[in-house]
Amino acid sequence: MSYTIIDGCPSTSGNNYPLNTISMIKSAAKTYPEVEIVSRKNDGSLFRYNYGQAYERIQKLANALKRLGIKPGDRVGVMEWNTYRHFELYFAISGIGAVVLQMNLRLSPADLSYVINHSEARYIFVGDTLLPLVEAVADQLNTVEGFAVITDKDLADIETSLDSPKSYEALLEKEEPVFQWPMINENSAYSACYTSGTTGKPKGVYYSHRCIYLHTMVFAYSVGLKMDDVVMQTVPMFHGQGWGIWLGAPMVGAKLVFPGRYTMETTEILVDLMVSEKVTFNGGAPAIFMPMLEYIRSLPEKPDFTGLRMISGATEPPLSMMRGYWDLGKAEILHAYGATETTPLVLINRFKPTIKGWTQEKEWGNQKKQGLPLCGIDLKIVGADGNEVTADGETVGELLVRGPWITASYHNDARTADCFDEDGYWQSGDAATIDKNGYVKITDRFKDVIKSGGEWISSIDLENAIMANENVLEACVIGLSHPKWQERPLALVVLREGMAGSVTPEDIIGSIGAHFAKWQLPDDVIFVDEIPKTSVGKFDKKVARKEHERFFLDE
Amino acid sequence: MSYTIIDGCPSTSGNNYPLNTISMIKSAAKTYPEVEIVSRKNDGSLFRYNYGQAYERIQKLANALKRLGIKPGDRVGVMEWNTYRHFELYFAISGIGAVVLQMNLRLSPADLSYVINHSEARYIFVGDTLLPLVEAVADQLNTVEGFAVITDKDLADIETSLDSPKSYEALLEKEEPVFQWPMINENSAYSACYTSGTTGKPKGVYYSHRCIYLHTMVFAYSVGLKMDDVVMQTVPMFHGQGWGIWLGAPMVGAKLVFPGRYTMETTEILVDLMVSEKVTFNGGAPAIFMPMLEYIRSLPEKPDFTGLRMISGATEPPLSMMRGYWDLGKAEILHAYGATETTPLVLINRFKPTIKGWTQEKEWGNQKKQGLPLCGIDLKIVGADGNEVTADGETVGELLVRGPWITASYHNDARTADCFDEDGYWQSGDAATIDKNGYVKITDRFKDVIKSGGEWISSIDLENAIMANENVLEACVIGLSHPKWQERPLALVVLREGMAGSVTPEDIIGSIGAHFAKWQLPDDVIFVDEIPKTSVGKFDKKVARKEHERFFLDE
Repeated sequence: MSYTIIDGCPSTSGNNYPLNTISMIKSAAKTYPEVEIVSRKNDGSLFRYNYGQAYERIQKLANALKRLGIKPGDRVGVMEWNTYRHFELYFAISGIGAVVLQMNLRLSPADLSYVINHSEARYIFVGDTLLPLVEAVADQLNTVEGFAVITDKDLADIETSLDSPKSYEALLEKEEPVFQWPMINENSAYSACYTSGTTGKPKGVYYSHRCIYLHTMVFAYSVGLKMDDVVMQTVPMFHGQGWGIWLGAPMVGAKLVFPGRYTMETTEILVDLMVSEKVTFNGGAPAIFMPMLEYIRSLPEKPDFTGLRMISGATEPPLSMMRGYWDLGKAEILHAYGATETTPLVLINRFKPTIKGWTQEKEWGNQKKQGLPLCGIDLKIVGADGNEVTADGETVGELLVRGPWITASYHNDARTADCFDEDGYWQSGDAATIDKNGYVKITDRFKDVIKSGGEWISSIDLENAIMANENVLEACVIGLSHPKWQERPLALVVLREGMAGSVTPEDIIGSIGAHFAKWQLPDDVIFVDEIPKTSVGKFDKKVARKEHERFFLDE
Repeated sequence: MSYTIIDGCPSTSGNNYPLNTISMIKSAAKTYPEVEIVSRKNDGSLFRYNYGQAYERIQKLANALKRLGIKPGDRVGVMEWNTYRHFELYFAISGIGAVVLQMNLRLSPADLSYVINHSEARYIFVGDTLLPLVEAVADQLNTVEGFAVITDKDLADIETSLDSPKSYEALLEKEEPVFQWPMINENSAYSACYTSGTTGKPKGVYYSHRCIYLHTMVFAYSVGLKMDDVVMQTVPMFHGQGWGIWLGAPMVGAKLVFPGRYTMETTEILVDLMVSEKVTFNGGAPAIFMPMLEYIRSLPEKPDFTGLRMISGATEPPLSMMRGYWDLGKAEILHAYGATETTPLVLINRFKPTIKGWTQEKEWGNQKKQGLPLCGIDLKIVGADGNEVTADGETVGELLVRGPWITASYHNDARTADCFDEDGYWQSGDAATIDKNGYVKITDRFKDVIKSGGEWISSIDLENAIMANENVLEACVIGLSHPKWQERPLALVVLREGMAGSVTPEDIIGSIGAHFAKWQLPDDVIFVDEIPKTSVGKFDKKVARKEHERFFLDE
């Protein structure tokens, strides 16, 4: 880190009083003890309690952790769906000064064991339905001393090859609901998440108490979170702390809803829960919001989503999706951008009141950009010459960020040197533009840009254009080696149910022809059943490219 | 400070990247350069520019400060109305690592010179209309090396006895609009404010960059500040940094309005400005909101204040005032509580959605309490036995607070030892209750509680009851020595214009009789033209008691 910090006049305020995660739930339990937490169980029933009761159980859990020998600085793995017990574990583990290791259940066994060993986790908590994933790597773990199973069942009814695991509820049962929390140096880690990058082994980001506390405050004011909100935690809590949405609720005193073991196949459950619990804030990505909207469209009675805001990441929200939710009571999709390394919020899209006179279409188009940088982050978009690019919405550069909640290194990892510049900026690898109104648009991953005949083609622009076609469910555009042009684009397209056979590659290319130069259009379209995805649901273009690598070479 | 801070696992995030005030205006200038700042000048005209232009002038000012020899850690006094130049000074002075000494223009000359000398200020910026206040103490200042006059006039046209002052605009004129800001240890002071306590010399609170940054974030999410807001800075910026309201605007990208040289006599100007600039957020106290409402009632066409929130401190908002604004488009009064020592937000009153089935009258009554503690503050109300009082809304104790934005000591002041307990809590001296819904009510200053025959009488409850009388403008109740009962209450009442002679003491006491036990009622009422006030507009009961000290003794 190359910047110098100078001292001024010593201050009398705040002194060394640290920002600790536990103070969020402690405050909520004191001021909003009656506010409800609703959590869907594996059997489909709804568990309900409140912040007061949650805090009692968190204190029991902290006593249990201490009894297990967990000490400040230890890493404790958690692999679980979005449930109230996951919530309890985050607070209790970090509250005693230990670190929640986020165990992404979509990692390969090789990556999962790497992450656990690299973090030197001493203990693992695992949901009963997820046991096979941990069992598969158990004999490769070098530092784990014990396991506990998160379950509603009796431990005797659970079959597992893990060595004498404990039961989460049995651990709590014998403990007192009172705990004297230590004050923890706020620059200590509260949780660790490993990147799910498509190249090399995962890299560890160790979030500090300070960083997540600041992030939660920024999140709260940026999306206008308030105590009247009902917040649903749809983003998986096992990666990027589910963007910390569940932390915002106790901070402002809002009701909190955990959907439990949802999957892409349980879209109806998510929608039904939103309706029955009157959810006003949710987070996710088009990959989940699109099928939810499909389901809503099939309902005889449309829900009223007045006041609903949904923060949406990962990929650009299609116009049809934004419009679809808007039609349900002006529900807003807030497009946002971040990464594991950034806690993650960096950009969020809200429409500027200073912009006047745009057509509605132009406004919608603007909402598809990733948005405006949050106050407090140093952000720049740097061209090949090392200078910031012109703010014309067209010139592409690499997005660099640094700030109080941006990672400044990877945990025990020599690759740190490759990913941060000399001024301490994290180099995102994302290609971006910034326009004169300050809106940033991610145009591509630098490694996914297609280089054709000395020109660049944005795979993302092509994908979004194709996905605007009402017959298309998903589209992924990859650059493949080409004997003449170096690379050429190929589109992989998943059609909507029942459309197979009635749409041709020419229809697809024809439908987007007006928006691109001819040389930018894909050379071909392949209809597929599924597009390969990474563990966090992004297109895995590395895998897709591998599958089709000789497509143009063998033609 | 007696708590211990332990270390956990070192984190990779944020590292030592500091929270510095300058990053707020830097972010605003980058993302919201076009957003307007409006500032009323002494001649009544409106000055308009935007965050982009303000940031250029702030950079010029930083260069000028450096040229004047101001170094990190130096204190620089500022005495000015709420203007855009005051805003510029806060950022530029703190941005270079120096400290803004807030010069309260309502301090006595003795206190003012004490504050300047105690802070060892090296330089003073003073508004042209305020020159006499500084001139009056100039020959008593031990450390001040120079003065600059904040003025629209030519320096040659200004008559002053100050030794060769500079002109603010002339200082800026020759500088470049670019400055390389240092990164400042966030625990360094950005500004200093001295208490306006009614006992002894003022005590210095030195707010850190970190503390005001955190406070601004909490403020932003607690009042739901957003970029669509138009924020007016009515609270004087020369004390308690005007509660930092003006800092929230650039953080979220909202338009900002400075009313300039307003006084209690210019109520119409404040209202007219709110209407013409479409203000949606304001801060102040009943002392200013009440006459504003009187003026609004006199207007033939009532303004539409839909969406307006007004944070209100100092004294309890009268029901009639809350209702009056509510009738103008559901404008909300947010009752809040704080002190110089607390930056200041500690409590804010928002109505809990979990409270159901109350009558509207009961809801209004609840809104008169100071409200709910903000997340992140350790707050307790402690009885004489040293334990927290029961949350019954009746048991009175002293309010104690500590936290990341609460002062932990006074600057170079031995009185620190008397004001903080062994766990680092600041002892507010305020008597308070907390109810089962978590709402705190300040019942009195401990020194203003009236001790009558072994029982306590709340002077504030009596005052509020009397002020509910439509003929009363202001009421102050003091406890005076009494030969039999130790102390007895006396009410000082200012009647509304034209009411003198038509209201008797018996009318006043009769109108509140139903709400109090007979022994709690004031023994007498004195009609006065004015109630003595402190420099921040609170009743100065010390002075009032002094004026009437023998009232019951000489009877």
